[in-house]
Amino acid sequence: MQVSVVVFDAYGTLFDVAGAARAAAASDTRLAGLWPRLADDWRRKQLEYTWLRSLMRDHADFASVTAEALDWAMEAAGLEDAALRARLLALYDELPAYPEVPAMLKAVQTRGLPRAILSNGTPAMLSSATRAAGVAPLLDAVLSVEDLGIYKPDPSVYALVTAHFDVPPPEVLFVSSNGWDVAGASAFGFRTLWVNRMGAPVDRLPGRPDHIARDLSSLTDLLP
Amino acid sequence: MQVSVVVFDAYGTLFDVAGAARAAAASDTRLAGLWPRLADDWRRKQLEYTWLRSLMRDHADFASVTAEALDWAMEAAGLEDAALRARLLALYDELPAYPEVPAMLKAVQTRGLPRAILSNGTPAMLSSATRAAGVAPLLDAVLSVEDLGIYKPDPSVYALVTAHFDVPPPEVLFVSSNGWDVAGASAFGFRTLWVNRMGAPVDRLPGRPDHIARDLSSLTDLLP
Repeated sequence: MQVSVVVFDAYGTLFDVAGAARAAAASDTRLAGLWPRLADDWRRKQLEYTWLRSLMRDHADFASVTAEALDWAMEAAGLEDAALRARLLALYDELPAYPEVPAMLKAVQTRGLPRAILSNGTPAMLSSATRAAGVAPLLDAVLSVEDLGIYKPDPSVYALVTAHFDVPPPEVLFVSSNGWDVAGASAFGFRTLWVNRMGAPVDRLPGRPDHIARDLSSLTDLLP
Repeated sequence: MQVSVVVFDAYGTLFDVAGAARAAAASDTRLAGLWPRLADDWRRKQLEYTWLRSLMRDHADFASVTAEALDWAMEAAGLEDAALRARLLALYDELPAYPEVPAMLKAVQTRGLPRAILSNGTPAMLSSATRAAGVAPLLDAVLSVEDLGIYKPDPSVYALVTAHFDVPPPEVLFVSSNGWDVAGASAFGFRTLWVNRMGAPVDRLPGRPDHIARDLSSLTDLLP
């Protein structure tokens, strides 16, 4: 079955989630040696909290979870400071896109295929991120888990795509840098590309990636 | 409401999960500098896979998930070796208990309260671990999520305790070193003690710990 829609995860896939802590470190010497650990802890807790709240049958939106994860990470680093917290959260709303993203999105359009985001982010966060990175005009749809109140990899999240585009799962090429997200998407029936920027092992979960690449630049090789 | 039952998480709380990699390193020079990272990755992936499989509405028992997480961690460390894998899994079935555990369990008994484990582990894994550590005779019940096929912090797991002992949640003192497990137990209505061995920040999740201690030695101070 041919691919008819290309769907991207946002955070870590199109947008560099370490960008907020890195940018803050450029003008704040307290972060000099600490920012990579801060960025790692922030991301790890952010994901853990989405999974744990979903399992606890509780929901808070991704803006809240992102702030809560940052609070944990700042406390762990001994960096509690309200102004720094506000600065990091503001930077998170304007994360940089990876350099290959704009050209890749244009190349998908020249194949005549719609391009969408499917993300844990709130509609407001995703609107801000896509505008700041200049990719808003290069996307045909931005789908958020907020319509459901549960996070990836709950199967109902991936079903937002098939409902929106009215296509069967195997016609969707789903692209994520998060191995667990690829697992959830593959298990749902999407064709998947894992962008393995870090050279990590494949996650031992149901749903293996159909394709693996180091970045997004060769994505169009997979299209009809 | 007075505590009438004391329930313990097993892995990380009664048993030292880093013990397997540490013990293997004592007789395998390949692990010399690597074992702390191997133990961390193994534990992190093990927990992630329980949460992710639960959200994907898929289940594999904790023995399988533990082996899958080890496979990921060994590949990340460049340590793929079938004999070492078998050795680490065998050691995981005989993890050491923390030194204060036997005296603490005896002290709870002298207060006339039943003592139980509530764990993600399979009945076979828990039987092996409690026997190897010599604490099997000091426990009145060993409850496993395998009766449900879903992992903590799904609320149905904590309900195994109230069903088994026929008590309301506030009569249960639930003890875990895992902050997210304490969050799930507190949200369910248990009274909770977080054993914060690492001095980590409190997780920003619904359900905060009622009590925090560095180890298990002062637990009986909380009992009637």
